[in-house]
Amino acid sequence: MNNFQYHNPVRILFGKGQMAQLPKQIPAQAKVMLTYGGGSIFKNGVYDQVKAALSSYTVVEFGGIEANPTYETLMKGVEIARQEGIDFLLSVGGGSVLDGTKFMAAAIPFEGPDAWQIVANRAKFTKAIPIGAVLTLPATGSEMNYYAVISRQETQEKKGMGNPLVYPQFSILDPETTFSLPPRQIANGIADAFTHVMEQYMTYPVRAEMQDRMAEGVLLTLIDEGPKMLANPTDYDAAANIMWAATMALNGLLAAGVPTDWATHQIGHELTALHGIDHARTLAVVLPHLLEIKKETKREKLLQYGRRVWQLTGTDDELVAGAIQKTADFYESLGIPTKASAYAIPASTVTEVVQRFEARGMNFGERADITPQVVGEILELSLA
Amino acid sequence: MNNFQYHNPVRILFGKGQMAQLPKQIPAQAKVMLTYGGGSIFKNGVYDQVKAALSSYTVVEFGGIEANPTYETLMKGVEIARQEGIDFLLSVGGGSVLDGTKFMAAAIPFEGPDAWQIVANRAKFTKAIPIGAVLTLPATGSEMNYYAVISRQETQEKKGMGNPLVYPQFSILDPETTFSLPPRQIANGIADAFTHVMEQYMTYPVRAEMQDRMAEGVLLTLIDEGPKMLANPTDYDAAANIMWAATMALNGLLAAGVPTDWATHQIGHELTALHGIDHARTLAVVLPHLLEIKKETKREKLLQYGRRVWQLTGTDDELVAGAIQKTADFYESLGIPTKASAYAIPASTVTEVVQRFEARGMNFGERADITPQVVGEILELSLA
Repeated sequence: MNNFQYHNPVRILFGKGQMAQLPKQIPAQAKVMLTYGGGSIFKNGVYDQVKAALSSYTVVEFGGIEANPTYETLMKGVEIARQEGIDFLLSVGGGSVLDGTKFMAAAIPFEGPDAWQIVANRAKFTKAIPIGAVLTLPATGSEMNYYAVISRQETQEKKGMGNPLVYPQFSILDPETTFSLPPRQIANGIADAFTHVMEQYMTYPVRAEMQDRMAEGVLLTLIDEGPKMLANPTDYDAAANIMWAATMALNGLLAAGVPTDWATHQIGHELTALHGIDHARTLAVVLPHLLEIKKETKREKLLQYGRRVWQLTGTDDELVAGAIQKTADFYESLGIPTKASAYAIPASTVTEVVQRFEARGMNFGERADITPQVVGEILELSLA
Repeated sequence: MNNFQYHNPVRILFGKGQMAQLPKQIPAQAKVMLTYGGGSIFKNGVYDQVKAALSSYTVVEFGGIEANPTYETLMKGVEIARQEGIDFLLSVGGGSVLDGTKFMAAAIPFEGPDAWQIVANRAKFTKAIPIGAVLTLPATGSEMNYYAVISRQETQEKKGMGNPLVYPQFSILDPETTFSLPPRQIANGIADAFTHVMEQYMTYPVRAEMQDRMAEGVLLTLIDEGPKMLANPTDYDAAANIMWAATMALNGLLAAGVPTDWATHQIGHELTALHGIDHARTLAVVLPHLLEIKKETKREKLLQYGRRVWQLTGTDDELVAGAIQKTADFYESLGIPTKASAYAIPASTVTEVVQRFEARGMNFGERADITPQVVGEILELSLA
């Protein structure tokens, strides 16, 4: 087991009716900016619940944060927040709204000339506006971590940032808020959480049995409960398990003390940046093919995963092949294709993505062996 | 799944050499009281490491905190801390030292006339001295929760307290500090952690699949790695897995959103209070017999546990019997007897414990069906 530090102070308020706790979580004198996305919160009743809970506060609204939130949009919110003297940000929506809100929290008091540097060059910042979250879409895990992924339209970039200053102070997770989600968003959320676990688990063993067992537990929960939530979106317990599993998938516990990969995300981000493909779908396009290309270096973990998660038996080679096939099958069972052809990704994208990785001048993966050339091989296999 | 709140701000510093982080965790001007137990930290080198790390601090020492820490001992430390103006408590040792330190943290600034009321009547307190911990014995989980169990010699009582104010600010967990533990303490620690999981898991299903999978993961880790640590106490990875599993067993995650039992602990505490039996051993004396007596109300979970944790097959009745037998066998495999006769507990103890439960005027267990009479039945079975 590797050494680690773990510190996660996010307060989780989980379950039906937890919105009633909202006023206890925000300082009484706070001037609140309510951030949200494309307007689903008006249809599912969450906006009305939040406004009712915040009736005694001064609230400024900033909506229109898109999926894969952009620097261009968010900087408009930053300007308003500065003008209005906002001192608390309440994100209401899914991971994109929350990621965007985290960027805003850092950008509002940022003293440098160019807030994009927070993302592009991970510029240090020492202040952030406090954040709270009301989550309406289980997927990204952003509700219990300090990471965010931000896009820039102008340059077709999509990059991550992270800093403990942007931990949400609290996150309200009421599974009932997910009841009206369209099937595509439910499927994407399950696929996203599943891939988060795989990025932290499917590497090489360091005898971190406790972490492996937890990761396998999250995978098994997603595999067992995901189809139930898709089949019946108002199955409260299915929604609750998926919501809590997606949070556990990326709250730092699974990564503590183990090597992590994250190459699938790095490649997927480029596909979203270039073609606007849903984040979770880009992961499904990459991961099964990455596993095939790296099946020798990931062999021990593929065997363990095949046996424990998919209950496979057979020769070692059969287990490895079966484990990769089961992974692709799982995405497909959610209605998410795993071949690039299904998304009309052209062959020229391979060259373009490889060039972007070459420009970065670094390799990825738990062994730093995902070179630009390997990225090309993975995408070629997905196109085949 | 039940509603829950979860908030755990303890910073974990895990692994070899983490003691070097100690000075960064304690305010530079703090006047520190170093609390410890019977002196094992002088033999295993931890005392020297801590003193070296704290060379720039004013440090007052308070040793001699016993297993099952007593109010009588702890109040001596409280007096010294008040006289010395201590503003940080550093617990160095196992769960007993840390539990005692948590009581001291609350008692030092307590303004009521009788600090025992913090334990006896869960008297509210609004201030506590900040705590840090260096853990040398994996067992109780106290390093990542806000609970403590305190005994009073005068009245032969053993009772719990809990308050977020006594969360450790940080806990240093270096598995190498466990290398010199005697086998009895290693075995007790594994048994204690195992029972903590069972208290939160072996109840009735509420479709909290995520929590169940995590609980099963901790149990499997203890079952797989426990014997390795016992066989080879300097197996770093075995020690690391047991240490992290014991922390995960009682940091609040397993209990979030599910019913919990804790009757085994309540009965076990009385056996320690009356006969001075090691805490973990009292749990082994109680749990298998409690499961036998309550096997109908715990039937669904016993079946799940038998299948998933012990890989049992057969009829449902065979699974239930097998799951209970495997539980007893596990304690015995650690060298911990599960029958009261092995501890020379006399038959008169049954009457005495039943009377203590009658005096409390409340029932225990996840269904509040562990009446004083049922407590008697459990102990009779253990004596049989």
